[in-house]
Amino acid sequence: MRLDRIFTHARLATMAGSEPYGAMEDGAVGVRDGRIAFVGHVTDAPDAAEIVDLEGRWVTPALVDCHTHIVFAGDRSLEFEKRLAGESYEAIAKAGGGIVSTVKAVRSSSAADLAAATLSRLDPLHQEGLGTIEIKTGYGLNFESELNMLKAIRSLGLVTGLRVQSTLLAAHAIPPEYAGRADDYVDEICIPLIREAAREGLADAVDAYCEKIAFSPEQTRRVFEAAREAGLMIKLHADQFSNLGGAALAAEFGALSADHLEYTDDAGVAAMAEAGTVAVILPGAFYMLNETQKPPIAALRKAGVPMALATDANPGSSPVLSLLMTANMACTLFGFTVEEALAGITRQGARALGLQNEIGTIEVGKRCDLAVWEVDNLAQLVQWVGARPLHGRILSGEWA
Amino acid sequence: MRLDRIFTHARLATMAGSEPYGAMEDGAVGVRDGRIAFVGHVTDAPDAAEIVDLEGRWVTPALVDCHTHIVFAGDRSLEFEKRLAGESYEAIAKAGGGIVSTVKAVRSSSAADLAAATLSRLDPLHQEGLGTIEIKTGYGLNFESELNMLKAIRSLGLVTGLRVQSTLLAAHAIPPEYAGRADDYVDEICIPLIREAAREGLADAVDAYCEKIAFSPEQTRRVFEAAREAGLMIKLHADQFSNLGGAALAAEFGALSADHLEYTDDAGVAAMAEAGTVAVILPGAFYMLNETQKPPIAALRKAGVPMALATDANPGSSPVLSLLMTANMACTLFGFTVEEALAGITRQGARALGLQNEIGTIEVGKRCDLAVWEVDNLAQLVQWVGARPLHGRILSGEWA
Ligand SMILES: [Zn+2]
Ligand SMILES: [Zn+2]
Repeated sequence: MRLDRIFTHARLATMAGSEPYGAMEDGAVGVRDGRIAFVGHVTDAPDAAEIVDLEGRWVTPALVDCHTHIVFAGDRSLEFEKRLAGESYEAIAKAGGGIVSTVKAVRSSSAADLAAATLSRLDPLHQEGLGTIEIKTGYGLNFESELNMLKAIRSLGLVTGLRVQSTLLAAHAIPPEYAGRADDYVDEICIPLIREAAREGLADAVDAYCEKIAFSPEQTRRVFEAAREAGLMIKLHADQFSNLGGAALAAEFGALSADHLEYTDDAGVAAMAEAGTVAVILPGAFYMLNETQKPPIAALRKAGVPMALATDANPGSSPVLSLLMTANMACTLFGFTVEEALAGITRQGARALGLQNEIGTIEVGKRCDLAVWEVDNLAQLVQWVGARPLHGRILSGEWA
Repeated sequence: MRLDRIFTHARLATMAGSEPYGAMEDGAVGVRDGRIAFVGHVTDAPDAAEIVDLEGRWVTPALVDCHTHIVFAGDRSLEFEKRLAGESYEAIAKAGGGIVSTVKAVRSSSAADLAAATLSRLDPLHQEGLGTIEIKTGYGLNFESELNMLKAIRSLGLVTGLRVQSTLLAAHAIPPEYAGRADDYVDEICIPLIREAAREGLADAVDAYCEKIAFSPEQTRRVFEAAREAGLMIKLHADQFSNLGGAALAAEFGALSADHLEYTDDAGVAAMAEAGTVAVILPGAFYMLNETQKPPIAALRKAGVPMALATDANPGSSPVLSLLMTANMACTLFGFTVEEALAGITRQGARALGLQNEIGTIEVGKRCDLAVWEVDNLAQLVQWVGARPLHGRILSGEWA
């Protein structure tokens, strides 16, 4: 059982096992057919066709960004500028700003345009050690444009070398042409899209935005039923600005994750713990929106709910392209420990995507997706704002 | 008057003049002997030996980081980790943590060690478009080690290609051997160091930390008098955790800048406005320390006090290596406009260093230090967290 390649003299943070960070000094990771075939001490390593000496560097699983809206068109930075200059949200919306401007730009873009516009936004994440990213639709809001977004997302998986998970979020907002008719939008657009996306294999999961300004729990339930019927996994934007019981609803449907959770109560936390639903915490939006209501981290921790972290990358509420900065925010703003933060962007991120058997830890049988770092210890990855600590990234056992 | 080189087809943000951002479409910047010899429209540009087409990209002055403690030794990330895991500040200090651990590491380092350890920390700032950086001493806290820090700072100016300003901050903290004897420390160490640094040309300015836990206004005054006598410029860490009248004290001595200012009152603001003292705002420390008392931005703005921004890069309270993230924090946390934020890391940063005639704007006669950006508009530079928008950096008229 000769290995294709072995990476030696690594300080491994396997993020698995009972040691903090699953740490192992003077470790080695062996690869066969792109998967991890050996994890252990250098001295115990089997023979390999190629040996790569990592010279004592720290190695973690490649990073996972499990919640993004990074495919979009247009630009909302001028809104950001106007708001800081004192213009009201109302005035900006009246001038055609807000999500409506993104929807307009997406609707006038082809799938190819959307993919091309996204490439440069993926760069900083690439350069930070990303291996897997989830990308949602939700700016098309009609049949054709949501499908275009799905195609753009799938094409990014083909051309970037990243593992890309595709989530259909037609139930993101009610488009202008359905104003006041959210139920019709769910029936006429969201549910047919779920069936079509499943038929064409364009989506891995279905998501919805359950909030007073978006879809009710009852409408969300219908979206979820269609997703379940179509055999797609389920996620939910839950309890960001108010408590509509979104976390419990997600848990009831066995959702992979409930995301945001600023207003989730004890019942929601208990339901998630019971169902094994991952809490995806999004500090970027909290920071950018100057929010004060924090997600119930202590309660989630106590109940044993897995906590993932993600950028929520989007042009409005979370223009964030760094998972390390996200981890720093989780520690600084929400009191995550460093280990929880690193787990949030690796192991728990994988779990939030249903990929816990494929990626997210350094264990035999998983994809050999690794990040190699120029730091003396793991806490430096999270402590420093704006540092660029990546030495290199390995995907399926090769430098990428 | 032929130019050495001209950069054409730029969207200039000169940061000078009355237009927002000093913006000029289809602009050109001409260089002779490393200085800007022409700024204007492409069509009016004089002849040049070399033409560099910037293809419509936005160009700003190279960035200025006017307040850092980036030269240090040792590592405090494990403290960060422990504090998040629930250990108290007291327990960490008892175990030898805090600034004392940095002082210990610096005292056992040579000037060469200190310079070498700093190089990799400068990298992210280089890659973000930095042209000029100020670096303070203040971790040696004895005669020999403070001089070593000054030498390390000067050597970084020689080897990195950056413009480096050196500030003597012996009055940063009271070292253990002077516990309870701050006056003796000022007389026996700080003041002789000021004279020695001036004699050897190792410092451009003198700074002090005027705070209950550090030096009193009276002790600060003696430091400033020595600085003035030695012909060095003056800066002050003022009013960060309490109002000791630091801003007014700085203004009284005609200081270049008063920095932090969270607790500065109206009298302090008025004194700064009168004296032309720059307010250096440091949102990184505010963010990392979870502070709630914000500097009086509206009052500073109203009084016409120039506001600069800086990373405050240091291993404890502000582990920040990004001026763009600092600008984002200034907008998000303190309500800076985008233009104020960009001025804060260019024009006003230069002024906080007394270099307003040399750098910080794109104007004839100044050093041709530019940053060239891959953005559609300037607000994108500040809006996005973790983006890497730099196309290239020009120092003294050459790609650097
Ligand atoms: Zn989202
Ligand atoms: Zn400072």
